[in-house]
Amino acid sequence: MKIEVFFSPAGVDELSMRGRNVVIIDVLRASSTICNALNSGAREVIPTPDIENATKIASNLSGDSRLLGGERQGKKIDGFDLGNSPLEYTPEKVGGKTIIFTTTNGAGAIYKCRYASMALVGTFVNVSSIVQTIVGIGGTWTILCAGRQGSFSVEDVTCAGMIISKVQAAAEVETDDAGLTAVILYKNFKRSILGMLRRSEHGKYLTSIGFSKDLKFCAAIDSIPVVPAVDGVGIKLRHSLAEASAKTSQTS
Amino acid sequence: MKIEVFFSPAGVDELSMRGRNVVIIDVLRASSTICNALNSGAREVIPTPDIENATKIASNLSGDSRLLGGERQGKKIDGFDLGNSPLEYTPEKVGGKTIIFTTTNGAGAIYKCRYASMALVGTFVNVSSIVQTIVGIGGTWTILCAGRQGSFSVEDVTCAGMIISKVQAAAEVETDDAGLTAVILYKNFKRSILGMLRRSEHGKYLTSIGFSKDLKFCAAIDSIPVVPAVDGVGIKLRHSLAEASAKTSQTS
Repeated sequence: MKIEVFFSPAGVDELSMRGRNVVIIDVLRASSTICNALNSGAREVIPTPDIENATKIASNLSGDSRLLGGERQGKKIDGFDLGNSPLEYTPEKVGGKTIIFTTTNGAGAIYKCRYASMALVGTFVNVSSIVQTIVGIGGTWTILCAGRQGSFSVEDVTCAGMIISKVQAAAEVETDDAGLTAVILYKNFKRSILGMLRRSEHGKYLTSIGFSKDLKFCAAIDSIPVVPAVDGVGIKLRHSLAEASAKTSQTS
Repeated sequence: MKIEVFFSPAGVDELSMRGRNVVIIDVLRASSTICNALNSGAREVIPTPDIENATKIASNLSGDSRLLGGERQGKKIDGFDLGNSPLEYTPEKVGGKTIIFTTTNGAGAIYKCRYASMALVGTFVNVSSIVQTIVGIGGTWTILCAGRQGSFSVEDVTCAGMIISKVQAAAEVETDDAGLTAVILYKNFKRSILGMLRRSEHGKYLTSIGFSKDLKFCAAIDSIPVVPAVDGVGIKLRHSLAEASAKTSQTS
């Protein structure tokens, strides 16, 4: 197997991701929020890089069935139903709903992977589920770290390193300088993922604006064992996609 | 003190580097070659990102006084006097000469720093000299890693981590996620810098095209205790610049 790592989506575009098997990581917080939203029963999450497009998509859906979620500077966007704290995405709020979702880093990174062969959303809360999927499929994978405004985020790369380490426990893995660095970061921080989040630039910022509880949520390894996968414009649970595809082939 | 690290020059331009104190690192091999060229008595090294511009600059200088040096895909450019192996830059060849120098990564990164307040060229062979200069001047510094074709190179970031670690031994240093990662990489690899170079993507490539001796040269910590500094269009030894400036103030 081969895994390569991009530290940020800067310089990455839709065409360069086309045909790849990709895992997009935005630990703080888009990946963690998407896992919790789908686990809480949201129908799907539609990622979009800008607010204008988010409201346009929302206007085409019935008001009962959809919610607008996301952040700018870490805070809920004016007029939106939900921010980007995973704790907000409870079954009561999001069950059965389509979430139109725009965030500064993660949503844009996922959007760039819409022509990928397979695009999964990964983070610490679902890391083993992602690893099982990668190992099951095999071949070549790209890990795209969302980073922060085009630059490097230690938490995303540490999570990439955890994925590579765990895949290496099951299979021979060839990686690049970035993957090697990710594994070294993970080995350095594995004893305290929460400590690493608290020490990170983004973690410090989120704590300063009142989201310290989110760090604890996002550090909880394997607490939400789901595999969110991009399916056309939206992100759904991968097993639900597999079931839908099985039903289609049964009826056809 | 504050030190921030850029993992590659992608997204960096002349204006974003203007007014900064910068150290540019291209371990394999531009920084190492520039150190050796100046230590071997070259008058100055003029970095330029493209071959066309290099030959244009050369045509404006007398043939006796200048040499064209550099590489593409690691190999000497057709019609050039020298490649990018530091071992070629001997006193016999480069003493008293101006080197017009174009390489894939390092020369372009240095060129982007031509409006910096101060731009120094650093690598393992002159690491302590760079650290002494940074500590002596203090304030805020940027370390710009040349990387490889816009992406990450483990050897450049490890060297950045060595610089930060050594500055931290002398002063309180605030750094960013990238700087934190650099220090972790350095701590991981400090017992064998040569081993790290051999394991790196660029190191493997250079070995495959016959430059394994260059890796040993580039891993020799503090073997060339010089401080190359950008001065207008060229790079000279910093102490020679200081001496020239002292002479000017004495005569004025």
